This record gives sequence, structure tokens and C-alpha cells, in this order.
Amino acid sequence: MLDCIIVGSGPAGISAALTLQANRKSFMIFGGKHLSEKVEKAEKIHNYPGLSDVSGKTFLEALQGQLSDAEIDITEEKVGGVYVLKEGFTVLTQDGKTYESRTVILACGVENIKGIEGEESFFGRGVSYCATCDGFLYKGKTIAVLCTSKRLEHEIGFLAGYAKQIYLIPMYKNVEITGENITRVVQMPKAIVGDKRVEKLVFATAIDENFGKELPIDGIFMLKESLSPAILVGGLEMENGHVKVTRTLSTNLPGLYAAGDCTGRPYQHAKAVGEGNVAAHSVSEFLR
Amino acid sequence: MLDCIIVGSGPAGISAALTLQANRKSFMIFGGKHLSEKVEKAEKIHNYPGLSDVSGKTFLEALQGQLSDAEIDITEEKVGGVYVLKEGFTVLTQDGKTYESRTVILACGVENIKGIEGEESFFGRGVSYCATCDGFLYKGKTIAVLCTSKRLEHEIGFLAGYAKQIYLIPMYKNVEITGENITRVVQMPKAIVGDKRVEKLVFATAIDENFGKELPIDGIFMLKESLSPAILVGGLEMENGHVKVTRTLSTNLPGLYAAGDCTGRPYQHAKAVGEGNVAAHSVSEFLR
Repeated sequence: MLDCIIVGSGPAGISAALTLQANRKSFMIFGGKHLSEKVEKAEKIHNYPGLSDVSGKTFLEALQGQLSDAEIDITEEKVGGVYVLKEGFTVLTQDGKTYESRTVILACGVENIKGIEGEESFFGRGVSYCATCDGFLYKGKTIAVLCTSKRLEHEIGFLAGYAKQIYLIPMYKNVEITGENITRVVQMPKAIVGDKRVEKLVFATAIDENFGKELPIDGIFMLKESLSPAILVGGLEMENGHVKVTRTLSTNLPGLYAAGDCTGRPYQHAKAVGEGNVAAHSVSEFLR
Repeated sequence: MLDCIIVGSGPAGISAALTLQANRKSFMIFGGKHLSEKVEKAEKIHNYPGLSDVSGKTFLEALQGQLSDAEIDITEEKVGGVYVLKEGFTVLTQDGKTYESRTVILACGVENIKGIEGEESFFGRGVSYCATCDGFLYKGKTIAVLCTSKRLEHEIGFLAGYAKQIYLIPMYKNVEITGENITRVVQMPKAIVGDKRVEKLVFATAIDENFGKELPIDGIFMLKESLSPAILVGGLEMENGHVKVTRTLSTNLPGLYAAGDCTGRPYQHAKAVGEGNVAAHSVSEFLR
């Protein structure tokens, strides 16, 4: 069993990893080799102490070099869920692999999109966040796919292999994916509606000449770079859409810590690295 | 009246300054051009994200360059006290200058020395932290001087101009200052003892062949790079020797924030810059 699993490879996750490494703890860090799309997009970072007016890309390159110096590898698997064991946690990836750890640091960031009405209440009843986990359930069916990042287009392709019809609602620029069974919708839905399960999407105005304000669907996939902490971890206490943490970055679940944007504003690199550092120290303290 | 005064030029103070500058607030930052003696002494910093295995000196050079790029000047005056006004604060320097500000961020670090028994209770009754403020009170008297940094030797010299006899207890290496009325003591006192005022220092063992375990004095100066926050700000709530803060880095005094080592462990650069950043955002929020 590992000492710690870090979920997320942005500044908070990396700061936690560097400190766990310095403290000689065994750990894995889940994320992407590109580390953080949000950081990458930052044009100029003015107020990160030690790096004067760097671009997001330069900051990421510095972090990548540092991870390489410290011999820390990012595990490029998407985490689908974190489950509390009697002692420690099981982390389940979206590919169905499991890893066990005595502690977990959530550093999964925040998605800049608001949830859609009905999203939470239909989770598991037609709302899914994982193409590879649930795609096969929609063989021959009609689904909507809301996708926040170009990096996730391959998951749309994966779903298109099962579904009869996909309504794709892309939230990124330069959409490349096409397919006979893929129809693009350029409006964000207002609500997910149904009785026992998801039945339709409702929009504010008519979508186009072919559709009215409603789109009948069998399910909807929300493809995001990072899942909401509340979706990742059942029973996790939230506050105004963020993980509720103490000054030591502990959550309501013993052994589970959170750091960075997912704990709340300000959404700043300095704040994120500070919290990653403190969370890693709290983990070391907890393991003692 | 300024928007903010930052007390301290270590990583927390600098992070706060960079963020206040980015937020277009008017502010002053008090400290030293050398920024932080503690950082300077760090041989290698392994876990500060973005700077791989740098020395403390290299880190400081990066910060100095960044301050210069951002056109932020450090005010090299030692702060002697922070006083709550009806609206805002007055900051008094040890040279007797005053500055007014709507908010204050304490980023004054922690001294790595334990307090001496009796230090707090005799503050103002023979215990002083400010040579230039109180030196003249000891003209022709016998005083002890506990000094934590070579940089403060000039203050010992200043006191030697007044006192008849100084017992110098240096807490740094390569002591250079000498004087006819300066006698060095190489043991830390255990307690400051007296009735209405300080009367003597008590040591664990006899000092040397000339002295026993007690040293009669009229007063003692504790010369430190940074004062304890509780000494700086009357009425400030502390917890286990650190400033008690919330997640937004607010203290029990509205408009007064704290960041960095003075708020508690871990004493880490990443944690300090994170808190400086958050405190600066809280200041902006408060000013709104």
C-alpha cells in the first residue's frame, strides 16, 4: 500500500509530490504529462515569486524539468473514483485499474463550467463522466456528449463506436472530430430532465430549424479533464462548490486532503503550491 | 492613507507585494534589501515548484530581480509597533516614523529562539526590543544585550554609548564588536527575574569564575531581526506561539492579516508564498 496518491498534476499536485519525495514517502501522482491545460493557457504569470513574468508554458517547462530531476513520473490515467477503505483508500481509474494508498491528496482543480441543472441528481442514472466505464451501456442508443477539452476528443470517438446517435456539445475551440452519427449542438443545455432516468435535455431557445427546445436522449456524458471532487469521492464535504478544508488542508474524511483550486479562491499558482506543500506535510504527520 | 503595509520581506511578504502590485493597490513593504537572512542561509531548496534545487541565495536573487522588474522598493526601516486606529492602522518604526494604512499584512517570520522565562511579563519593565527607542533610558546603567544577528551589531554599539556596562549574549557566529564596557557571556539565561522591574538574569550553571548563576542588571535588550507578532501588535490573538489565522489569513483584528512562518508550520517557502498571495487577495476583498 502506498503512503499517498495525488490526484491531479497542476501546481498543487506537483508541489505535494516534490515535498512527499523530499520526505521519502511512497506515492503516485495521477495526471497528464502536459501537467495542466489551465496553466498552459496562461499568457503571463506576473506574481509567482521566483519566476518573473513567465508564460504558462515556461512555468510548465520548469516544473517538468524539476519533476524529471526529482525522478517523479506522472501516471497518465484518469481517476474515476476514490473509495474509503477500513484503512486507507482505493483509487479506481477510468480504465478499471485500482491502487491502494494510506492517504489521498485531491489536487484536481476546478472546471470553469457551471454544472447543469439535474446533473447531480441524475448521476448514475443516465449522467456519466467516464466514456470507457459506461460507453458500452449505450450501444445503439442516443446520447449527448458535453466535452470541455480537445484532449478528450478520442473519448467522443470511443462513444461513437457504440451509440447510434451522438449530440456533441463541445466547449472548446477547433473541434476536429466528425462522424456520420455525430451532430454538433452549439448551445449549452439548461437542464437534464427525466423521471427515473435521464430522458431529455432542455435548452433555453430552440436549437435550430430541425429541433425545438428539447432533445430526447438516453444518456449524457460529461467529458471533463477533471471530475468534481464530490463526484470523485462519496461523502466528501463541500462548501460553495469547493472542498471544505481546514488550515492543515484536511477534509471531513480522515487521511484525505485537498489542495489548490479545488479548495477555493483565489485561483492562483502561489496559493496552489503553498497548499500542495502543506497537504504533503499533513500527510507525513498523519502517517506518523 | 496607504491601502496596505506589509511587515517583512521574506517570501510571504514578497508574494503579497507582487500580488498587491498586480491588483494596483498602494502599499509599502518593510524589511531589508537582503530580504531574508533565513532564506539566504538555506543551502539547497529542493521542493519549491519552478526552481529546481536552487540555493537560498539564488532564490533571493530571483526574488530581487522580480521586485526590481515590478518596481517594488523595500523600505529599510525596522517596524516597532502596529497600532489599531478607528479606521486602519498606524505603523511606527523604531526610528520613530509613522505610516498609516487601511490594512496590514504581518509577514515577519518566526525567530528560531525560544523566549526566556519572564520575557513577556517584564516587557516594558526592563525588557526592550528596540535599542534606538529605549537606549537612552539606560545611561550609566548595567544592561544585558541578547543579539540574534550580526546585522544588528551596530545596535549593540549604540547601546554601549549609553550604558556603563553591557553583558553581551550573542546568538550568532563571528562576533566582531568589542568595547571596554562590553563583556561577553556565552551561556543563554534561563530566566529574567525581578520584582517591579527586571533585577537580574538567572543562569542554569555558573557563568565563569567571576560570576555565579546570577547577573544583576537594570534591563535587557533582545535584539532580533523580527519582533514577535504579539509584541508588534497589542491585542493580536496567538495560538501556540503563532498568529491565529483563518483560511483567508485574517486575524482577530479586522484589516490585519498574517502570512508565512509567523502563522505556523510548516516553515516552507511554498507555504509562505501561498499565504502571502492569499493575504493580498483578502486585503483587496477587504478594501472593496
